[in-house]
Amino acid sequence: MRYAIIGTGALGGFYGGMLAKSGADVHFLFNNDYDHVVKYGLRVDSVLGNFHLYGSGQEHREGILLNAYKSANEMPKCDVIVVTLKTINNFLLKKILPPLLHSKSTVILVQNGLGMEENLSKEFPGVAIAGGMAFICSVKKGPGHIEHAEFGELTVGGHVNVDMKVLERFRDDLVKSGLPAKTTDDLNDFRWRKLVWNIPYNGLTVILNAGTDQLMEDPDSRQLVNDLMVETITAANRCGAHIQDEFAQKMLDYTDSMLPYKPSMKLDFDHNRKMEIEYIYSNPIRAAAAHGFKMEKTSVVEQQLKFLEKSFVEAQ
Amino acid sequence: MRYAIIGTGALGGFYGGMLAKSGADVHFLFNNDYDHVVKYGLRVDSVLGNFHLYGSGQEHREGILLNAYKSANEMPKCDVIVVTLKTINNFLLKKILPPLLHSKSTVILVQNGLGMEENLSKEFPGVAIAGGMAFICSVKKGPGHIEHAEFGELTVGGHVNVDMKVLERFRDDLVKSGLPAKTTDDLNDFRWRKLVWNIPYNGLTVILNAGTDQLMEDPDSRQLVNDLMVETITAANRCGAHIQDEFAQKMLDYTDSMLPYKPSMKLDFDHNRKMEIEYIYSNPIRAAAAHGFKMEKTSVVEQQLKFLEKSFVEAQ
Repeated sequence: MRYAIIGTGALGGFYGGMLAKSGADVHFLFNNDYDHVVKYGLRVDSVLGNFHLYGSGQEHREGILLNAYKSANEMPKCDVIVVTLKTINNFLLKKILPPLLHSKSTVILVQNGLGMEENLSKEFPGVAIAGGMAFICSVKKGPGHIEHAEFGELTVGGHVNVDMKVLERFRDDLVKSGLPAKTTDDLNDFRWRKLVWNIPYNGLTVILNAGTDQLMEDPDSRQLVNDLMVETITAANRCGAHIQDEFAQKMLDYTDSMLPYKPSMKLDFDHNRKMEIEYIYSNPIRAAAAHGFKMEKTSVVEQQLKFLEKSFVEAQ
Repeated sequence: MRYAIIGTGALGGFYGGMLAKSGADVHFLFNNDYDHVVKYGLRVDSVLGNFHLYGSGQEHREGILLNAYKSANEMPKCDVIVVTLKTINNFLLKKILPPLLHSKSTVILVQNGLGMEENLSKEFPGVAIAGGMAFICSVKKGPGHIEHAEFGELTVGGHVNVDMKVLERFRDDLVKSGLPAKTTDDLNDFRWRKLVWNIPYNGLTVILNAGTDQLMEDPDSRQLVNDLMVETITAANRCGAHIQDEFAQKMLDYTDSMLPYKPSMKLDFDHNRKMEIEYIYSNPIRAAAAHGFKMEKTSVVEQQLKFLEKSFVEAQ
């Protein structure tokens, strides 16, 4: 299987790097970091073991070459296209995907939120579209430099036109590379499970300017996290998921066990980048409303985030 | 009528000052500012006209003397005791009030929130207790220096053991001093009306670090303000108030017409002072819950404020 990684950051750099390291045929699309990685390669500092893929412009060539591209037009057609862009950049896929697609390609959106696959399938009818949820703590430390602190499980599920055998081969390649991975036949359910974590922590770390550890230590913010989880589970089940109430406690325990962490939305906000409000908040709120449930608490967080995002955009 | 002003800040300094200026017999309790006002008096910069009450230690004595005290034990018994403390200091009333009370004294709590009268009546059974709501923009600029920017209407209503004639005389004295004032026979209704303004603006200016004008300009925060108002009106009517839905629009229009303003809670937060979360948020949420209504959105704001308050207390 030939892989494309679209958006080589904290997620794409890690998963693509792990696949390449274990011998898979992986092709990475870069944006601003392209010149850097040609010169210096891709560096991954991981709790599973550090590694490095060398750049085509590097003198010292040892190990595995990083197949880096700055344009999708230069890339080969691929069997599996792993999209690890931020959802705010999904509008770029209309141009990025066509050169990569053959008649049996599968696009896997490894992203947070809800509704990404629906939107993409409108633009690419007939294409096999799947989704992936990463339970991982990793960050991009700098150009071509990924730091993977904890966890790493990736779950993939089909949305439309997907041959499950392709997802199973992807899963097997991940497992071969040393990562926990699995497939699901209920992508919607898994997307909502991820939201049970993302909805409280992404927004509250921004609004309250705090790490996950601070939110967990304080009894009031901890209660608020719990309340948002419970509301998300209620919304999820109205939208066809099957999540037990106890899943909230499981996510709290999971977060208690984590090292102090700043979710991607907090990092985006701190760096004055646009936040993934649309897919992580607005789409779930809309989906729940379409099923007759108002996400009252989540809407407060959404509106606060929208206000805060504009306040820094205006300041620029 | 002899008046006591307990807590001479933005509200007490203004209302008490206006009463004294127009000839009423007013006695002011000060805390930290006592030495300053003895030396320099009380300065009120008001859109209705600036004025000054001279301090007993001032050389240049012109106009009206400020009757200032640093302890309630030194004050005379009074007919009307106007409490303009922050509610976080209401625990002090147990010591402050006894020396001021005669058998027909009326205590008027000019404060924001819900449940202050209930709590006080438990500590002072048999005493006449009333409440007051000030629709005013005023701030304490420094020791003995009040700035009154806009509005000023005071509404008073009885809670328990109150002779309405006393409240009417208080109202008349305010009107005589040049202020709009009225009485109400439904204190609960008016307390909730004030909360329709306080619940959105006090909390959101703190959480989003913004003035009222910024919250009104941005469509998302404006919608959030509106949603919190609607939730508060629903809670109010469950708790026996009679507030029309249109009252939310009236409060939005009122705020649009205001100069940019930082509510008292925002000033408290900016100065690392304790915030009035208990009476403005927790008590209304509890009251609504006792009537079977969950203030979902307001609870988010309450929990966020409690987190933020502790984060600065810990930093000290």
